[in-house]
Amino acid sequence: MHEPHVVVVGGGFGGLWTVRALARERVRITLVDRRNHHLFQPLLYQVATAGLSAPDIAAPLRHILREQANVDVLLAEVTDIDAASRHITLADGRMLTYDTLVLASGATHAYFGHDDWADIAPGLKTLDDALAIRRRVLTAFERAEAATSDAERDAWLDFAVVGGGPTGVELAGTLAEIARHTLRNEFRHIDPARARVRLIEAGPRVLASFPDDLSAKARKQLERLGVDVVTGRAVTSITEEGYALGDEFIASRTVLWAAGVAASPLGRMLGVETDRVGRVPVAPDLSVPAYPDVFIAGDLASVQQDGRPVPGVAPAAKQMGRHVARVIRARLRGETVPAFRYRDYGNLATIGRMAGVVDLHGVKLSGLVAWWFWLVAHVFFLIGFRNRLIVLINWAWSYWSYQRHARIILRGESEDGTA
Amino acid sequence: MHEPHVVVVGGGFGGLWTVRALARERVRITLVDRRNHHLFQPLLYQVATAGLSAPDIAAPLRHILREQANVDVLLAEVTDIDAASRHITLADGRMLTYDTLVLASGATHAYFGHDDWADIAPGLKTLDDALAIRRRVLTAFERAEAATSDAERDAWLDFAVVGGGPTGVELAGTLAEIARHTLRNEFRHIDPARARVRLIEAGPRVLASFPDDLSAKARKQLERLGVDVVTGRAVTSITEEGYALGDEFIASRTVLWAAGVAASPLGRMLGVETDRVGRVPVAPDLSVPAYPDVFIAGDLASVQQDGRPVPGVAPAAKQMGRHVARVIRARLRGETVPAFRYRDYGNLATIGRMAGVVDLHGVKLSGLVAWWFWLVAHVFFLIGFRNRLIVLINWAWSYWSYQRHARIILRGESEDGTA
Repeated sequence: MHEPHVVVVGGGFGGLWTVRALARERVRITLVDRRNHHLFQPLLYQVATAGLSAPDIAAPLRHILREQANVDVLLAEVTDIDAASRHITLADGRMLTYDTLVLASGATHAYFGHDDWADIAPGLKTLDDALAIRRRVLTAFERAEAATSDAERDAWLDFAVVGGGPTGVELAGTLAEIARHTLRNEFRHIDPARARVRLIEAGPRVLASFPDDLSAKARKQLERLGVDVVTGRAVTSITEEGYALGDEFIASRTVLWAAGVAASPLGRMLGVETDRVGRVPVAPDLSVPAYPDVFIAGDLASVQQDGRPVPGVAPAAKQMGRHVARVIRARLRGETVPAFRYRDYGNLATIGRMAGVVDLHGVKLSGLVAWWFWLVAHVFFLIGFRNRLIVLINWAWSYWSYQRHARIILRGESEDGTA
Repeated sequence: MHEPHVVVVGGGFGGLWTVRALARERVRITLVDRRNHHLFQPLLYQVATAGLSAPDIAAPLRHILREQANVDVLLAEVTDIDAASRHITLADGRMLTYDTLVLASGATHAYFGHDDWADIAPGLKTLDDALAIRRRVLTAFERAEAATSDAERDAWLDFAVVGGGPTGVELAGTLAEIARHTLRNEFRHIDPARARVRLIEAGPRVLASFPDDLSAKARKQLERLGVDVVTGRAVTSITEEGYALGDEFIASRTVLWAAGVAASPLGRMLGVETDRVGRVPVAPDLSVPAYPDVFIAGDLASVQQDGRPVPGVAPAAKQMGRHVARVIRARLRGETVPAFRYRDYGNLATIGRMAGVVDLHGVKLSGLVAWWFWLVAHVFFLIGFRNRLIVLINWAWSYWSYQRHARIILRGESEDGTA
């Protein structure tokens, strides 16, 4: 009997949850990813700030899926999609035909038309990005230590994070902690605690997806950590020497980008209309209206619910993945399922050591209790027992000692040179 | 009062042990290293084979030395030494003058005049090397899985390790273990257990620095793990497609180099005569005969003892480092110390999981008991409590589960492209 071939592109939360939910189904699944691992993105900033090692937050896709006999994992890059004749093309020229295609290739960072900023102000989406940021930050303190003028030293001790969403807040808070605590006593010619960490948000407040009062609390917690929070002003240029904030030019050698999001280019390959950032609008069952055999899950999907977009967060991607699997299953049996609905259990962000904000739609937490809630939730959702244990130990260690064990500068550059 | 300036180049075992032994001395020390971390090299092959993360076996030099007030750590590369006027030049053009210079820049791998093999057959000396080898090995299995012909698949499943010393034996044993156990059930189109792992030693036996009977036992243990051990035959060419063993050409996409050692180029910058591999012959107090204010510690030193060279191993480097510190201290006080003598406590090597050989000059161990001895000795000598704990947990985990947690392909390439 011919088993339908389901091709899933992307092994993040959306794709992996689709695949797992089809474990008992009589389908043949091919999971295609450019990388060999599933990444627990919510903890990526910890790798960037040397609190965790890269393998702590990643697990090989093959290993996760080794017991699921109906899956074939393929390390490959998709270069074209022909939805009319139902096949995709891979970078090595091979073609894969499918009966059902699930696109879950996620999002990357965007520079709002300033692509020249990408080399200067790295963003944070992959493990390679995280290691590049780690190298930049640790090297900046080394350069400051070796500086021969005050101006040079100050520029190396100036850190700017552009974008006041959860990633920006987490990066800025942790950078301040590193400067004030982790590096204490380690330098002879500079005082790392004098480093300036500035978080810049063009909108009126940080963590705009949270209620007003939690935004205000987050700002206060950031300021207590020593972060200089700037809201309502946009960065208008970035160069190797610094950045401009309106008319003001600030000398800074380390600008990190946590501002813009763009959907993966695979959405555009479908040849259907996409939204402003490249996301694909979907039908209520998460299929593409023009191609009912193509589904979108995760950050690549543009889903409206009650007049608002479903946010690009891990729980939403997992829910979409499971829903797509449910629709595939139902169609095989000639059944139908209700439309996708995102269940929003809440919103959480951490701000350096021992601070954070949590919004559970009714219950609001901030400060230490929010930090603990965040920690438990994140470690709980990490895939694989071993990772959880190691991450907990690393956290206990850095909590107790203020140390960050992964402060190792690796010389690698990502292959495309953009990291 | 003018405190003498001691410049130490290299933060490996030789340099770091010199610096630490001078902690209470009234000297001003500058420790110069190209990398920001001390590396526990004996466990480097574990990073290459995905058993440990890079930060598990490395610690920032600044952090190790933060309490030692008489040390200044400098992240910089030495490009020239002027021993006559007592200064060194750094890559950024700065110069450092010294009263005493300690060169402890170690060794790298050598290709016996075949420098074109370096890109094809990577060696293992730095963390970046280890990550490059990890990427090569994991990618080979992926390519085999995607191969479209038997010949292509077999070439990707052929692994050769050139050089039968401890590093070669450790790499080959662990590769066999990965192929036979770690990757079980993860592939759909290949059987990883059918991979061929060949260890090639041009001399008559593997682990030539061990007694004959332990060499024989090591060979038997390797063969039991599935390694094809070839002795008495040399690799005569290496290309992208494979390698030649005498007249025979073997199609292989993964050749790892564990054969040759060359001393760091800093020895040659001194302008004195060096030995065949670039090591600097030293006086009995480890100073350079032509320049008594220059000392050599670790793998860069050529030291003869009882008619035999002192081996390039971690314990010898540490002993030299401590001896150099003792001589510096004695000279400041107008005293003298006895000549350096290497105390050889024994020799150990591991062979994959649960096997190894130990020679304690009188007591010989092999198999499981040698493996445990090796494990305890290595974890004990790891710097820093946290690293020891994490490494032990990782080992317990991989021992119990056969899993290797760091199987994450990072895309980075080392900056100079030689990794």
